[in-house]
Amino acid sequence: MLYDLTVVQFSKMLNNLSAILVKGEGFAEAKKIEMSVLLNSRLAPDQFNLTRQVQIACDTAKLAVARLTGQEDSAPKHEDNETTLAELQARIASVVDYLATFTAEDFTGAETRKITHRRWEDKYLTGRDFALEHAIPNIYFHVTTAYAILRHNGVEVGKKDYLGAMPFKS
Amino acid sequence: MLYDLTVVQFSKMLNNLSAILVKGEGFAEAKKIEMSVLLNSRLAPDQFNLTRQVQIACDTAKLAVARLTGQEDSAPKHEDNETTLAELQARIASVVDYLATFTAEDFTGAETRKITHRRWEDKYLTGRDFALEHAIPNIYFHVTTAYAILRHNGVEVGKKDYLGAMPFKS
Repeated sequence: MLYDLTVVQFSKMLNNLSAILVKGEGFAEAKKIEMSVLLNSRLAPDQFNLTRQVQIACDTAKLAVARLTGQEDSAPKHEDNETTLAELQARIASVVDYLATFTAEDFTGAETRKITHRRWEDKYLTGRDFALEHAIPNIYFHVTTAYAILRHNGVEVGKKDYLGAMPFKS
Repeated sequence: MLYDLTVVQFSKMLNNLSAILVKGEGFAEAKKIEMSVLLNSRLAPDQFNLTRQVQIACDTAKLAVARLTGQEDSAPKHEDNETTLAELQARIASVVDYLATFTAEDFTGAETRKITHRRWEDKYLTGRDFALEHAIPNIYFHVTTAYAILRHNGVEVGKKDYLGAMPFKS
């Protein structure tokens, strides 16, 4: 299930984030303001701005999958130097493309894999704990915060933009 | 795994939300402002305020578990009439207590259970899709939004308050 929770669902959320940013772009054009105003917006002086929220959402997705599958070196590198929406959209697309290279089989053993991080010193999380208590809450945090920054600035986005389409059956 | 993703992790997030609200209370006391100011805050005029975000986070948790386990009638009822932080904390506690009545065995068959909703007309989601694409993104959305409203108002909360303690091993 970790494959669906990460590769599949993170891809969906990154695509939702991309569409939310397009709505922000439309808002900026209609209001005749620079998109950079929105990209530099934040909800508190010491909070990361919209650009950084998007960057971290991307990194959370790519690094979670890379670490869970034991392929950390395979993740695309990003220099955190995006200054335009087009560059941020390219970053999102590169991560969605990267996630698409994984299959459910790549997650064999992922639940018990030891996940380490330089900030955690010599401690580790199991892959299962890392996914459920760290990666998953984090990606929703940053997508929601990006959404909230745009919402706060007046962009008309709603819960459906955040959740995306539901796979209804009948 | 649906048990851990919902009962265990939703309980953790509701407890984190409770602690974040306590930080909001301390901020209000230090600034000599009424807590109701924070509880009525929102990031956009047509967004639900902090009180409603907490109510919905609670409902998302209780109803997700009730629906996934086929025990919808067992969920505690709430009248959405909380006006104080103490009342909201009691609501959170009632949901955490409710979630604690479930075991992993209660989720047998949950992944394939047909989850219906009056708003979805005659369509349904499988339990698995409902959890991964609806309930999980939703609870993180509302906890993050509650956090963002307090953060925007100056309350000193950080990512650790949102994520809670990590189950590190060494």
